[in-house]
Amino acid sequence: MIPTEVIRRKRDRERLPPDEVRDFVRAYTKGEVPDYQAAALVMAIYLNGLHADELHALTEAMLRSGEVLDLAAIPGVKVDKHSTGGVGDKLSLPLAPAVAACGVAVPMVSGRGLGHTGGTLDKLEAIPGFRVDLEVPRFIAQVRDLGLCLIGQTATLAPADRKLYALRDATATVDSIPLIASSIMSKKLAEGIDALVLDVKVGRGAFMKTEARARELAQTMCAIGQGHGKRVVAYLTNMDQPLGLAIGNATEAIESFEVLKGRGPGDVRELTLVLGAEMLVLGGVAADLADGRRRIGAALDDGAALERMRRCVAAQGGDPRAVDDYGRLPTARRRHDVGARAAGYVTAIDAEGVGVAAMRLGAGRQKKEDAVDPAVGIALAKKLGDPVAPGEPLATLLMNDVGPEPAAALVQAAYCIGPAPPAARPLVLGEIR
Amino acid sequence: MIPTEVIRRKRDRERLPPDEVRDFVRAYTKGEVPDYQAAALVMAIYLNGLHADELHALTEAMLRSGEVLDLAAIPGVKVDKHSTGGVGDKLSLPLAPAVAACGVAVPMVSGRGLGHTGGTLDKLEAIPGFRVDLEVPRFIAQVRDLGLCLIGQTATLAPADRKLYALRDATATVDSIPLIASSIMSKKLAEGIDALVLDVKVGRGAFMKTEARARELAQTMCAIGQGHGKRVVAYLTNMDQPLGLAIGNATEAIESFEVLKGRGPGDVRELTLVLGAEMLVLGGVAADLADGRRRIGAALDDGAALERMRRCVAAQGGDPRAVDDYGRLPTARRRHDVGARAAGYVTAIDAEGVGVAAMRLGAGRQKKEDAVDPAVGIALAKKLGDPVAPGEPLATLLMNDVGPEPAAALVQAAYCIGPAPPAARPLVLGEIR
Repeated sequence: MIPTEVIRRKRDRERLPPDEVRDFVRAYTKGEVPDYQAAALVMAIYLNGLHADELHALTEAMLRSGEVLDLAAIPGVKVDKHSTGGVGDKLSLPLAPAVAACGVAVPMVSGRGLGHTGGTLDKLEAIPGFRVDLEVPRFIAQVRDLGLCLIGQTATLAPADRKLYALRDATATVDSIPLIASSIMSKKLAEGIDALVLDVKVGRGAFMKTEARARELAQTMCAIGQGHGKRVVAYLTNMDQPLGLAIGNATEAIESFEVLKGRGPGDVRELTLVLGAEMLVLGGVAADLADGRRRIGAALDDGAALERMRRCVAAQGGDPRAVDDYGRLPTARRRHDVGARAAGYVTAIDAEGVGVAAMRLGAGRQKKEDAVDPAVGIALAKKLGDPVAPGEPLATLLMNDVGPEPAAALVQAAYCIGPAPPAARPLVLGEIR
Repeated sequence: MIPTEVIRRKRDRERLPPDEVRDFVRAYTKGEVPDYQAAALVMAIYLNGLHADELHALTEAMLRSGEVLDLAAIPGVKVDKHSTGGVGDKLSLPLAPAVAACGVAVPMVSGRGLGHTGGTLDKLEAIPGFRVDLEVPRFIAQVRDLGLCLIGQTATLAPADRKLYALRDATATVDSIPLIASSIMSKKLAEGIDALVLDVKVGRGAFMKTEARARELAQTMCAIGQGHGKRVVAYLTNMDQPLGLAIGNATEAIESFEVLKGRGPGDVRELTLVLGAEMLVLGGVAADLADGRRRIGAALDDGAALERMRRCVAAQGGDPRAVDDYGRLPTARRRHDVGARAAGYVTAIDAEGVGVAAMRLGAGRQKKEDAVDPAVGIALAKKLGDPVAPGEPLATLLMNDVGPEPAAALVQAAYCIGPAPPAARPLVLGEIR
C-alpha cells in the first residue's frame, strides 16, 4: 500500500481495492501514515464519495482497529439504538430501561454532546454519582444481570474512528454521508450487538437537514450493518422542533423519568414506543410492531421500566432516589422567561437555534474540551401549533453563572409566530429496513 | 481567518475572500496552521479548482512569504524564461547567454531534476567548479555586469511554495493546474523580473500530456503574471520526443555549448531562436520577433553568445575551458548501444520512457535526496522520422556504475518503428500572450 497512490486513486474516482483501504487505515492508526495524508484522502472521499465495497472495507478496518466486544455471555439477541443527534433528544434514557424491562438486552455505548446537540452521557451524569466509564467486564455483567448498561465509548473500541473523527473535525470533512455512516457503524459493530435501531433525525435541528440526505445516510448505514450480518432498521424522525419540552442535562433526565412514569411529553413517549417496539421485534420478544408497542407502553405505564432505570442508576453508582426526588438533581439558581412578542400560533421553532441557546447557557459544548453545567438549560412552554398571547412565555431559561443573553435572543429568534397553526408534520417520516 | 471555515468554503465551491487565502498561507508558513489542514485545503483546491481572484491571492501570498528581489540596480528590462520541464530540455543553457549577449538582462533562478525530467542546475553543475548557490547580492551584481546569472532557488524566495510543494508531493496533489501555476509564478515573481517567457511542454515526456491542458496552464500563468503587472508570454512546445539528442547532465551541457557555437541539433537551436526572440522583444531590444530571431541567430553564429557563457562559467567558479575542451567535463566510462530490432522509420519516441531510462542510469533523481552522476546519460542516434535498419543503434547509453539494464530495455521500448515516417508535428504548437 503506497499512501499517495491510495489518495491519487480516490482523487481520480478510481475504485480502491479493499485491502488498500484496510492497510491505509491500519497504518494511519499506528501513526505510520501521517495526518496530512489521511486529511487529503478524507477530503477526496468527501468530494468523490465511496463505493459500497470501499465503504464496507473502511468500516471493517475501523471496527477491527480495536477491541470487538464479545457479548456471548449474555443470552438472547442484543439490540442497541443509535440516534444521529438532535435537540432535546433524550430518547436513550426512557428507551433502554423500557426495552430491558420487556426482556431484550440493551448494551448501549453513547457519546457526549457537541455544538447544538446534547449527548446521552451528559444527561446521565446529571444524576449524582452516575458513572459512565465502567470497564468492559462490568459493562457485560450488568447487561447480563440487568438487561441494560449505559456507558461511554472506551479507548479500546474503534480507536481508528476516534483518530479519524478528530482529524475530520479539524479539516471540515465531518458532514459526509459515507464518513458519518462508517464512523457510527464501526463503533456500533464493535459493541458486539446483534441488531440495531437507528434514529436518523431530519430537519433544522439535525445534522441531516433534508429528508433525502437523511434517507441516504440511513440506507448507507443499513447496508453496512447488513453487510456485516447484523439486522439494522432505521427510522427517519422529525427534528424540525426540539423533542419534548426540556433541553439541558438534569432537565432532560427529569423529562425522561416522567416518560418512564407513563407521563411526559407526547412526542418523547411516542418515539419511545416506536423505537422500543422495533427493538423488541428485533430482539425476538414481540411478535410484531403492534405487539412491541403494547409491551413498551405497558412497561412505561406499570412502573416496570422505571424500576429498571432505578436499578441501573444504582448499579452505575448513581443515587436511585433522584429518579423520584428531582430535588436531588442539580437545579439552576435562576430562571428567565422569554415572552412572545406577538399574538398568534407557533409556526416554527428552529431547533438548532434553541440548541445553541442551551449551549450558550452552559448546557452544551462549543469545543470538545468544554465542561457542561448539568443544571442549566431551557424549558419550552410552547411547541409547534400552540397559540400564544403577547408577553406569554415561550420558554424559560434555567441559568446559573451565565446571564440570559444571548440565549434569550436566540430563543426569541428561534420561534416564528404566525396567524394560523402550521400543517401538522408526522413525527416519524419513514423507515428503512 | 478560521482554517476549517476556509477549507469548508473551498469544499463547498464557495469563493474564498482574498484576505482569507492570504491569512491561511501566512499562518501555514509560520506553522500555525498544521499540515493536515493545508492538505485538506489543497485536495479541495485540486478537485474544485480556484477562481482567478483566489489564484491571484494564493500566488501573492506565496510570493510575499519570503524575500522579493529588488533588481532596480540592474538597468533595463529584466526577462527570465521558465520551462515546465521535459526530457533533454537544456534550453536555459544556450538561451540565457544568447539573450544576454543581445543586451537583455537574464536573472535566472532554476530548479533541479526530479523523476524523468532533468534540471538546469544539475546540467550546470556538470561543469567542474560551477556554483549555483550564490548569495543574492552577488547574483544581482553578476546580472548587472554580465547580463546573466544562473542560480538555484534560495531559501528566502517563496518559502511558502517550498513548504506547500513538499506537502502536495506527499498528498497526490501536484498535478493541478492552479497549484502548478501559482507555484511557478510565485517563484518567478519573487525574482523581481519585469517579463517572463514560459515554455509549456506538451506531450508524452511532459507533465501536461495534452495540448488542452498545456494551454490551460499557460493561460493561467499568463493571467497571474499580468495580474501582477508583468508581461508574460507562453509558448506551447512539443515534448512528444526528447529535445535534442543528448539526455543527461554533462552531455546536455556539451550539446548546449554546440548550440552556442552555431551548431547543435536543429530543434534545440530552433527553440533557442523562438524563445530568445520573444525575450528580446519583451526586453525592448528587438523591434519584433523577426528582428529578435535574427539577433539571437547572429549571437549564436558569431561567438558572442558562447563568449557570454564562457564568462558566466568563470564568474560562477566554473572552468571556462570546459566550454571548448569537453574532455574537462565528466565522461562516462562505458557505453552501450541500443539497437533497432526491425527495419523501418521511427514513428514515436516515448520521451518519458527515455527520461526514466536516463534516471535509472544515474542522470536523474527518483527522490529529491538522490545524488546524480553528471557523466552518465543517453545519446540518441535516431529521432522521429529517421529511417533505421535492424541492429542499427537507436541510442547509446553512457554508463558508469550502473549497468545497461533496465535502461536499455526502457529505451528499446520507448522507440516505435513503423513502415513509414510519421506526419511531421510542429515544434511550436501555439503561443499565449
